[in-house]
Order: sequence, then C-alpha cells, then structure tokens
Amino acid sequence: MTDLERRIGPTARVRVTESVSDGDLEREDHVVAEEPLEIRIAWPGADARRAWVTMRTPGHDFELAAGWAFHEGIVGAGALAEVAYCTDEELTAEQEFNVVTLRASGPVDLAHRHDALSAGSSACGVCGKDSIGAALETVRGARWEGPPPRPDVVRRLPALLREEQSVFTRTGGVHAAGLFTADGDRHVVREDVGRHNAVDKVSGARLLAGEPVADAYLVVSGRAGFELVQKAVAAGVGSLVAVGAPTSLSVHLAREAGLGLFGFTQDRRTVRYA
Amino acid sequence: MTDLERRIGPTARVRVTESVSDGDLEREDHVVAEEPLEIRIAWPGADARRAWVTMRTPGHDFELAAGWAFHEGIVGAGALAEVAYCTDEELTAEQEFNVVTLRASGPVDLAHRHDALSAGSSACGVCGKDSIGAALETVRGARWEGPPPRPDVVRRLPALLREEQSVFTRTGGVHAAGLFTADGDRHVVREDVGRHNAVDKVSGARLLAGEPVADAYLVVSGRAGFELVQKAVAAGVGSLVAVGAPTSLSVHLAREAGLGLFGFTQDRRTVRYA
Repeated sequence: MTDLERRIGPTARVRVTESVSDGDLEREDHVVAEEPLEIRIAWPGADARRAWVTMRTPGHDFELAAGWAFHEGIVGAGALAEVAYCTDEELTAEQEFNVVTLRASGPVDLAHRHDALSAGSSACGVCGKDSIGAALETVRGARWEGPPPRPDVVRRLPALLREEQSVFTRTGGVHAAGLFTADGDRHVVREDVGRHNAVDKVSGARLLAGEPVADAYLVVSGRAGFELVQKAVAAGVGSLVAVGAPTSLSVHLAREAGLGLFGFTQDRRTVRYA
Repeated sequence: MTDLERRIGPTARVRVTESVSDGDLEREDHVVAEEPLEIRIAWPGADARRAWVTMRTPGHDFELAAGWAFHEGIVGAGALAEVAYCTDEELTAEQEFNVVTLRASGPVDLAHRHDALSAGSSACGVCGKDSIGAALETVRGARWEGPPPRPDVVRRLPALLREEQSVFTRTGGVHAAGLFTADGDRHVVREDVGRHNAVDKVSGARLLAGEPVADAYLVVSGRAGFELVQKAVAAGVGSLVAVGAPTSLSVHLAREAGLGLFGFTQDRRTVRYA
C-alpha cells in the first residue's frame, strides 16, 4: 500500500508531485475513496443473492443499498426488514465492509434485471422509448403533489448543496445530491464518487429514517443524464435540479413522467427543460 | 415527441425556459443526444448474444463497440472479423441503429462478465485488491514503451482536447477523450455523454483503422475514476491525463500497473499521482 492509506472512509491521503511551469513540488494530497460495494438481496425462503456491484465512496453504505433497491423498484418503502454487512466466514475484514445484504419482508422479483443483462437473449428492443417505458415501470410509492417549482428557490439550491460538500472541499473529486422542501429547506445531503450513488444514498437515508422520499426538489451537483432522471421519477420527487446539462433522453423521460427538470442552475439563472 | 427532435445524431433541439432574477425567457437550446446501445458478440459456431447495454451519444457506434470489447479483454486487437448494425426482422428502424454486433474470428469467453453479475453467486470476494487484480487480467496487446511523460506536454493536452469538442460547445453536457503522442500530436478525439464511452470510441477508432492503441497519452475531460484507469491499463497507454480528480482506487491501480496518472491538469499546472 506504500504511502496511500487504505481505510474505510470517504478520503485517502496520497503523496503527489505538482508540476507548474517553474518546476515541481512534492506534497500530500487527499483523494476521494473508491471501493466496490456488492448489494445482496434476501427474502423469506430465499438465501441472499448478489443483485449489483458498484464502485462507491465508503460511508452510508446501508443507505446506498436501500436507496438503490428502492429506485430499481426491487424493494419498496415498507418492505425492508433488515440491512446488514455480510458476515460470511470466507470474507476478509476488508471484504466484509464491501458487502451489504438487504432482507425484504416479502418476495422479491430480481428476474427482470438479470433478463436485461443475460447473454443469449434474442429479442432486444433497445431504443429510447423502451428505456422510458422501463423507467416508468420502476415507480414505487408516493408522488410529491405540491405547488409548482419556484425559480427563485431553484436558483438557491446549488449553493445550499455546496455548503454540505465536505468531501468535495478536500478532494475536488466527488458528486453530491440533496433532498429539499418547496421552501428550500434541506432534508439530507450525501456525497459519492458516483453521482448515481449519491442519489441512492439520499433516498436511502430517508427510507431508513422512516421519512418520505417524495419531496419537492432533488438536487445534483453534476449533469442530469437518463439514469438520474430515472431515479428522480422512481423517488416521486417534484423536480430534479442539476448544476450541469441534461440529455435528450432525460428531457423525454421527465416530460413523460411529469417531472420538473432544471439544468445549468446557479445563483443567477436556471434553465427549465421539462 | 412534441418539440424535441428525435434523430440519430449527437445533439437534439429542445424548447426551454430560462429563468433569471429579472424574469423568464423562452428560447431554443441544444442538448446532447443519449440513446441506449446494445453490444452483441458472435463468433464461429456461436450466434450473436447480448454482452452489454450502455447509454451513449449516437455516432461512432462501431468504434464504441470495438473499443469496449477490447478494453474488457473480450476481443483482442487482431480478433475482430466484422462490425455491423443489427438487422433482425423484429427490430424497428430506430432499434436497428441501437444494436451493434461484433463478429470475432475466434472463440470468445463471455462467461467471466456474466459470472460477476449473476444472481445466486455464493463466494463474493469484493474488495479493492480483487478489483485491481481483475483489471490487470484484462490487458491485451502491446504496451507503450517510450520516454517518461513530460509535464510541459501534459499541461498542454486539455487545451488541445478542447479544440475538438464540438458537441460540448453546443450542449455543455458531454465528455471527451483523446489519444496523443509523446510530443502532444493528436491521433483522435471523441465525445460522448458517458466518459467511459468516449474512451471506448477512441480505442475503437484506432483498432478499426488498424492503428496501435498504445500511445503516450490518453486524455479525458473529466475525473479519472477506477473504470477509466482500467481502460487506460487495458489499452496499454503510457499515461492517463485527467482534467479532474482521481480516486483512491484509481491511484492504486495506476501504481500497480505502471501507468502514469495526472489529475487537475490545466495550462498552468498538473498533479502527478502515479
């Protein structure tokens, strides 16, 4: 491991060489931690089985697992009986904290995900319309029904998100997501090396606290691609507010789902796409 | 489809409402196109089977498919017999251009990928060291063996990449990757909504042109996470140069593989992590 500290935490220290036109400088730097996380799902009568592996920033792992399964439409808000790290005897200590098992209180259908990935599938049907249709099918639970989004609140949200981005301040290499009320009050903010993980952690934090996920604004520090709009639709929020750009398919899905979609959002302006 | 033009191209037009503190402005905007692409792989004696689905910006699809299979260690540089769009009768016109089939000249082992994703797997072994081990196993083909990286050349590369980013100029929502020589001469630059796709397109462009992939510098417009370092290692390039931040696991992998890794690169400075 030489000088790069390996530990379960959101950042790691590393020796670097900074080169400017005048010459080189040796110094210490902080980088965001990235480790694989395996999510397993078990239900009454079924042993835990691997459902997904993602590269994530360690921390809030239970929230990540719970939020991911919720956004995928696999385990709904009231159907989660237990969340725990794996305790298989064959796992090393390092591996144990990279495997989370979700126990559902009722039967779970994992088949649709694995069908999509399995080799040998003959019918394909891959196009934007199919993707939108599949995304609309994952919706579980309540949908936020409140007043229409207020542009003055929307423009304030990225600065409110930024206040909570402690890992970004240290490393410059991490995304954030947050859930806010119609008045711009913050419920929860989470950071992760993967923008989709940060959104999973936000919804998971609300689920594990027994709080509703469907509130006025989901805010993300980066762009709003299809996958993030998909999660916002599944979460039932009123609007997705991005600091960066949307894509053609994310605009389509937001319009189909009745989700507000804002891009290029900052203090002085925001652009509404849906 | 209302006002949002759907077509196979890198951008789409959309009506938006821009909100500034003075009020609202209706105008037209360009967003980057995002569509699913299914990659199928066939080999002598085996029908085409689905190997992967990714959300990508349409264009250079054959390069994306060839580069992806190369980086995954599935189809090596000399083992590609044909690349074609799917012509299944059951596909609509829109779907046809979202399915690419790679025909390999020899047998292909897809099993390791599907094992990793399959449900019911018992042994897990998920940790950073395992991920690094798996990444080192995907290496195929030549490794660049030239002079050590020159910081003055490294600092110039993001500006040289930026000159070719025509889709970014229109949409602000797309990543770019490029392959450059030790003197900073450009071989190829590609853009995509997914940073990993842009890297796949760059390597695929070189492969399909019968040119070597392993050159001095692979340059990316965003951050350098594990997945991108994995592709740089598989491609055999000398150094990966990122405009954004690296992660703990990407620094580890680069050091294990002997890859140069530069982050936070701009005209005036760059930081060497490996």
